Amino acid sequence: MAGGRSLDTIAATSIVTLCLACLHVTSLKSQLFTRLGGLRYTTEPPISYKTLYFDQKIDHFGFLQDGTFKQRYLVADNHWQQPNGPILFYTGNEGDITWFCNNTGFMWEVAEQLGAMLVFAEHRYYGESLPFGQDSYSDVKHLNYLTSEQALADFAVLIQNIKTIVPGAQNSPVIAIGGSYGGMLSSWFRMKYPNIVVGALAASAPIWQFPDMVPCGDFYKIVTQDFAKSGKNCDANIRRSWKAINNVSSSVSGLQWLSEEFSLCSPLKNKNDAVSFKSWLQETWVNLAMVDYPYEANFLQPLPRWPIQKVVCKYLGFDATVSDEQLLHGVAQAAKVYYNYTGNAPCLNTSQTATSSLGALGWFFQACTEMVMPMCTDGVQDMFEPEEWSFQAFSDECNSVFGVRPRADWAGTVYGGKKIGSHSNIIFSNGGLDPWSAGGVTSNISQSLVSIMIPDGAHHLDLRYSNKLDPPSVRAARALELKYFQKWIRCTYRSLRRKF
Amino acid sequence: MAGGRSLDTIAATSIVTLCLACLHVTSLKSQLFTRLGGLRYTTEPPISYKTLYFDQKIDHFGFLQDGTFKQRYLVADNHWQQPNGPILFYTGNEGDITWFCNNTGFMWEVAEQLGAMLVFAEHRYYGESLPFGQDSYSDVKHLNYLTSEQALADFAVLIQNIKTIVPGAQNSPVIAIGGSYGGMLSSWFRMKYPNIVVGALAASAPIWQFPDMVPCGDFYKIVTQDFAKSGKNCDANIRRSWKAINNVSSSVSGLQWLSEEFSLCSPLKNKNDAVSFKSWLQETWVNLAMVDYPYEANFLQPLPRWPIQKVVCKYLGFDATVSDEQLLHGVAQAAKVYYNYTGNAPCLNTSQTATSSLGALGWFFQACTEMVMPMCTDGVQDMFEPEEWSFQAFSDECNSVFGVRPRADWAGTVYGGKKIGSHSNIIFSNGGLDPWSAGGVTSNISQSLVSIMIPDGAHHLDLRYSNKLDPPSVRAARALELKYFQKWIRCTYRSLRRKF
Repeated sequence: MAGGRSLDTIAATSIVTLCLACLHVTSLKSQLFTRLGGLRYTTEPPISYKTLYFDQKIDHFGFLQDGTFKQRYLVADNHWQQPNGPILFYTGNEGDITWFCNNTGFMWEVAEQLGAMLVFAEHRYYGESLPFGQDSYSDVKHLNYLTSEQALADFAVLIQNIKTIVPGAQNSPVIAIGGSYGGMLSSWFRMKYPNIVVGALAASAPIWQFPDMVPCGDFYKIVTQDFAKSGKNCDANIRRSWKAINNVSSSVSGLQWLSEEFSLCSPLKNKNDAVSFKSWLQETWVNLAMVDYPYEANFLQPLPRWPIQKVVCKYLGFDATVSDEQLLHGVAQAAKVYYNYTGNAPCLNTSQTATSSLGALGWFFQACTEMVMPMCTDGVQDMFEPEEWSFQAFSDECNSVFGVRPRADWAGTVYGGKKIGSHSNIIFSNGGLDPWSAGGVTSNISQSLVSIMIPDGAHHLDLRYSNKLDPPSVRAARALELKYFQKWIRCTYRSLRRKF
Repeated sequence: MAGGRSLDTIAATSIVTLCLACLHVTSLKSQLFTRLGGLRYTTEPPISYKTLYFDQKIDHFGFLQDGTFKQRYLVADNHWQQPNGPILFYTGNEGDITWFCNNTGFMWEVAEQLGAMLVFAEHRYYGESLPFGQDSYSDVKHLNYLTSEQALADFAVLIQNIKTIVPGAQNSPVIAIGGSYGGMLSSWFRMKYPNIVVGALAASAPIWQFPDMVPCGDFYKIVTQDFAKSGKNCDANIRRSWKAINNVSSSVSGLQWLSEEFSLCSPLKNKNDAVSFKSWLQETWVNLAMVDYPYEANFLQPLPRWPIQKVVCKYLGFDATVSDEQLLHGVAQAAKVYYNYTGNAPCLNTSQTATSSLGALGWFFQACTEMVMPMCTDGVQDMFEPEEWSFQAFSDECNSVFGVRPRADWAGTVYGGKKIGSHSNIIFSNGGLDPWSAGGVTSNISQSLVSIMIPDGAHHLDLRYSNKLDPPSVRAARALELKYFQKWIRCTYRSLRRKF
């Protein structure tokens, strides 16, 4: 993703896509408790939880820094059957934990069935869980404890604490659940701390989106396929659009026309702006692929059901004879589906993905250290402008922004890469529409490291509330996931009985 | 081990016992290549290895500190069958790696049989592998990267590097081997990095010698049993000796008499000296229990075969009517077996275990951070003066010495404590005479987490060169260990064949 592109863009893509929470936390907060009830298949249970804080060590891997910070976590125990009822533990991603709590309906739906306590643990450096308060992001010295290893240790220590202080929880089987980066964490949590969690559901977790594990172009290929199968010429016209933008933006009047056509809040002024504009548009298509859900939903943005097929591609059906302006008019209409489905947006903000929210900056730092995820495009197998992956360029940008160098191989070394076959009890679920499935585990590794594919699913659809428009594949996936949970729980109870 | 006892004593015991290398590195260095050939059962292969250095990250778990240091490792590949011949990897303990290399004859003996490469990796902060050179121990800031997690990460990164740079090693199965703390590391290495090592031999590894895992008194009970079964009244007279020392040391003339009787280099001057003297004596009995080998050997000290039964207890057969002075004369003779078997020691140095060698200080720091190993005595089930375990007192002493507080529960959280059943391919071997077996895994956990007991074995006897005086139990242990190695290696080759 590097090369000519700026780190802002690189980071923005990672953030928009993997860090689902970061960008829209503020705007979504007001909507947390107002759901589109009419569309729900099941009766949505009222969400009610306690907000708690745990004194967590700032550094689990050194003893010089012995300070603590308040880690936020949410607990819902109204269905919990004590003693020893199971605990479903959400391994928080890079964002405000309340947002994940409210967007992981699956956990709320199965809690009653399992007699389970729900715990949602916030990831350090996000939401309210700031190791150094407002100074947490002030410099690399303060950012130094923002790693996945520290986050996993937080989760482990927190669970140990819950088991100690909550009567009846001492022998509770704990299952880790997470989506996206949170899913990577849940699978890694089971791998590194099988003493703490009996199993993990890693939904849409691209644990192989690291150097030398999967082809760097697969991610954008899947985005492209989503558009290709959603309407005639849909991908082809997006592929054509980049050159059209280059042509039109070569003149001042063209830039002005483009700005008006896309209702941009800040008009494009020069070639650099046009480059950023293309990046923003590219990220728009990626985001649409991620949230291509079968029902009206509001995840990254409020969107209609099957947004790509039902709406976006309707604007992109031109044949090859179309003029640049006609083509870009269609592209603008398509983009507005994503940014202004409600009709309330006065204009489109192309700097939206480069938000300065804490969450975004945090993921930015993680990408620049451990979470090195190569991506590239060739313009042939995908619908984007060709761009090679250059680790060196990426590293140089990270160094100039943060003063850190990413370590390309570390994630593979510490989390096992493709050699994870000796672990157990992990479900990797992936959506066929989700570009992140490119880096996911999409076939069984062993009897207890299983892959569940949801061909009609976008980004961790299975973690969302059930809906009457859900495709059968996601219903089957959730049912199977539940069966695995029950198996792991039964297994724990059996060994408990042997013990006592 | 804390309570009234000083941290010097606490640390000294840990060091003398677990850190087998620290104390005598200097004195042993000259003897590395001079073995007692006449006693050997097998023809000792000539030891020859390359000494190499790898640029290792000082901090694997943070990105602020991006510096590197030279990690020393030794490679012997004269028997290695490439391509893909196995690698036996010694996970270095708290000391000079050449010492371990030369005291792990088992690896040298099986190398030819397996066509294996041998690698001995030095643990950071020991030997030559000093992250900050001579400043490494200057303060807690420099000591901050001395943890077992960092050491394991060193091993993982080093192996990845070897597999990358050594032609033919890319798909080599790697087996981790270690004894004592090195054995803890080898088992943890397989648990945390099963992508890097296919199995581990953890010899005499007290992975459960942590808070709330085993009774704190078991360690000294085993020491006592070793003496009890080695001669009539042997343990009883050591139990009596403490009061006799108290009686005799209550007068100035008594202190002088004691000093002469024990040929002390620095005569005892007051009650504090007498307290230190008793600690030193206690550690002497512990060390003897650890190195109670069936043949003349020089591990911690040059010693005769079966030193406790054949020599030490011969001096401690008195009945209860013996006078304090007679008793202590016998004790002095017994102690001199350990400190002056060669007859070359002009006097006995009671500060010997409180060495200021780097190795000792390093283990001291590790005990004061992660490696919290509770020990206690009651004077009834063991032959020592009663002393309770007090974490608080221990923590306060650590704080006053290093400015760090130990974390009592961390090792259990990060390494799983008793909940390690989901891991695989680890052999835990333990000697019945070895007090460290108190904290070891002494029964099978699963089909692939197996325990091998060596009833007649002291501290990791199985890792030593074979000897014609070896008891059948250790021969059987080594044969079984080799069988497991072969099984793991075959398994790797099978999956390689499936892959290609």
